[in-house]
Amino acid sequence: MKFTEIVDEIKNKRSYLCIGLDSDLDKIPEYLKDMEDPIFEFNKRVIDATKDLVIAYKPNIAFYESMGPSGLSSLSKTLEYIPKNIFKIADAKRGDIGNTSRMYAKTFFETYNFDAVTLSPYMGEDTSKPFLEYDKKWIILLTLTSNKSSTNIQHYTNSENEKLYSHVIKDSLRWSDEMNTMYVVGANRIDEIREIRKIIPKNFILIPGVGAQGGNLKEISSHSMNNNCGIIVNVSRDIIYADSSTSFESNIREKALIYKNQMELILNERGLI
Amino acid sequence: MKFTEIVDEIKNKRSYLCIGLDSDLDKIPEYLKDMEDPIFEFNKRVIDATKDLVIAYKPNIAFYESMGPSGLSSLSKTLEYIPKNIFKIADAKRGDIGNTSRMYAKTFFETYNFDAVTLSPYMGEDTSKPFLEYDKKWIILLTLTSNKSSTNIQHYTNSENEKLYSHVIKDSLRWSDEMNTMYVVGANRIDEIREIRKIIPKNFILIPGVGAQGGNLKEISSHSMNNNCGIIVNVSRDIIYADSSTSFESNIREKALIYKNQMELILNERGLI
Repeated sequence: MKFTEIVDEIKNKRSYLCIGLDSDLDKIPEYLKDMEDPIFEFNKRVIDATKDLVIAYKPNIAFYESMGPSGLSSLSKTLEYIPKNIFKIADAKRGDIGNTSRMYAKTFFETYNFDAVTLSPYMGEDTSKPFLEYDKKWIILLTLTSNKSSTNIQHYTNSENEKLYSHVIKDSLRWSDEMNTMYVVGANRIDEIREIRKIIPKNFILIPGVGAQGGNLKEISSHSMNNNCGIIVNVSRDIIYADSSTSFESNIREKALIYKNQMELILNERGLI
Repeated sequence: MKFTEIVDEIKNKRSYLCIGLDSDLDKIPEYLKDMEDPIFEFNKRVIDATKDLVIAYKPNIAFYESMGPSGLSSLSKTLEYIPKNIFKIADAKRGDIGNTSRMYAKTFFETYNFDAVTLSPYMGEDTSKPFLEYDKKWIILLTLTSNKSSTNIQHYTNSENEKLYSHVIKDSLRWSDEMNTMYVVGANRIDEIREIRKIIPKNFILIPGVGAQGGNLKEISSHSMNNNCGIIVNVSRDIIYADSSTSFESNIREKALIYKNQMELILNERGLI
C-alpha cells in the first residue's frame, strides 16, 4: 500500500483506527470453540463487524505462534479475509540481520502478505534493509514504547543529552523515509511525542496503548497529528473483548464506533476532512 | 536444563559447540526435496551425524516461519527428535511485553519445549519477566552483535562513557542471574568481550559468528572462557552446508569434528577437562 492510499483511506473512512487482532483462545466467546478453526472464526466476525470503521488491522503474531502450526493457519486465513484496501500490520517486533532478516521479510511480506511489520531497532540498520527492498511495503520501528521498564533502555542518554529513542529515529533517517517507514510511540508518551513529531514531521506514527492500556485518544492525537493525519491509533482488548456472548459482534461494532466517532470529530476539528 | 547439567555436558562431551539449524529449502541436498518433510529430514540427518559432538542446537526461527504453517511442523518434529541431554535454543530474538511476552514464553517453552530463547532488550525488563517464571528455562539477551550497523545502537554511549550494551547487561543483573540468563556476544567482538566477562564473571555467553562469519575460535575462547567454560560457540552454515551430496552427513560430521577437536584442545589447555 502506498502512502497516499493510506491517507485516502483515512479521509474516506473518517477514521485512523487500527484494531489489534490479539486473538486468544482463552478469551473468545465460548460457542466459537466448537468450530474447526475458532481463532479464524473469531477474527472473521471481528472483521465483518468493523471493516468499514477501521483503516488497519494488526494481528500480534505471538498469539498465533503460541498455538503451534495451526495458529499460523488461522493467521494465514485471516490475512486472506481482510479486504484489500485495509492496511495489514504484522506486530512481530522482529530484529535480526542478513539472511535471517531476509527470511523474516519473506515470511511477512510474501508468505502472509502483510503490508507492514514492526521491527526492533537494537541491531541497527541491518535489520531493516531486507524489508525496505519490497515495493509498497512498510517497516514500523519500535521507538518509545508504553511499558514502564522501557525507559531504562529507550531513555538512555548520551553526553549531548539525546535519548536513545530519539537517536534511533535520527539513525533511521539516513536510510529510510516517510514512504516506507513508520514509528511506534506509546499513547502514554504525551510529552515526548511532540518532540518526536518535530524530528519526523511527515512520517506516520503507530500509537498503541489507547483503551485498555489507559491512553487518552484526544490528548495523544492533538500532540501528534500532522496535515496528512499522520497517525494510526491501535486499540486491541478494549474492542475485541468488549463482550463474549453469541451476539458479541454488535457490541464489538458499538465499541469500535465510539472510537471511530471520536476520531471523525478530531479529524473534523483539524480541518482534515 | 540446569546450569550444572550444561557444565557437565560440556565436560563429558569435551565440547562447547552449538550447531545452528538455519535450515533453508534452497540450500539442502536436492534428493531430500522429494521427501514429505524435507526440512525435518535434513535436520534429522544433521542431528544423527553430530549429536555426540555438540552440547546445543539452535534453530533460527525465521527459516521455519518463512515456510508458513508447515515450517512450524518441521520445527516441532525437530525439537522432539533432539536428545534430552542437548540444550535447545530458539534463536527468535523476540522482544515484547505483558500478555504478548507471556504468549512468546508459552510458544517456545511449552508449545515447542525449547530450553532457552534469545531476546531483544529494547523494551527492558518487561520482555524477560514472563520467561523467567519458568523453572530450568533460560533467556539469552542480545548484547553486542557481530553485524556492522549494530554499533550505531549498541555502542550508544552515556555521559559516564558507558556503552548501551554494557548498560543492558548491568540493567539485567537487577532481575536475573547466571542460573537463568545468558548473553549473546558476536565472535568478532574480541576487545569488548574481555570487559563483558568482567561484568558477568559467571554467566554463560553465547557466541555466534565463528566459521562462515569469520570469527576465530581460539582467540574468542581465550578472551571469554571462565572456570565453568562459560561459553557456548555457535556455528551454522560452515557445518550444515559443508556438502550437498547424498552422503552429506559424513562431511557435516567431519566439519563438526574439526570444531569439536579444537574445543577439546582449548578445554584441555585451560585445565577444564
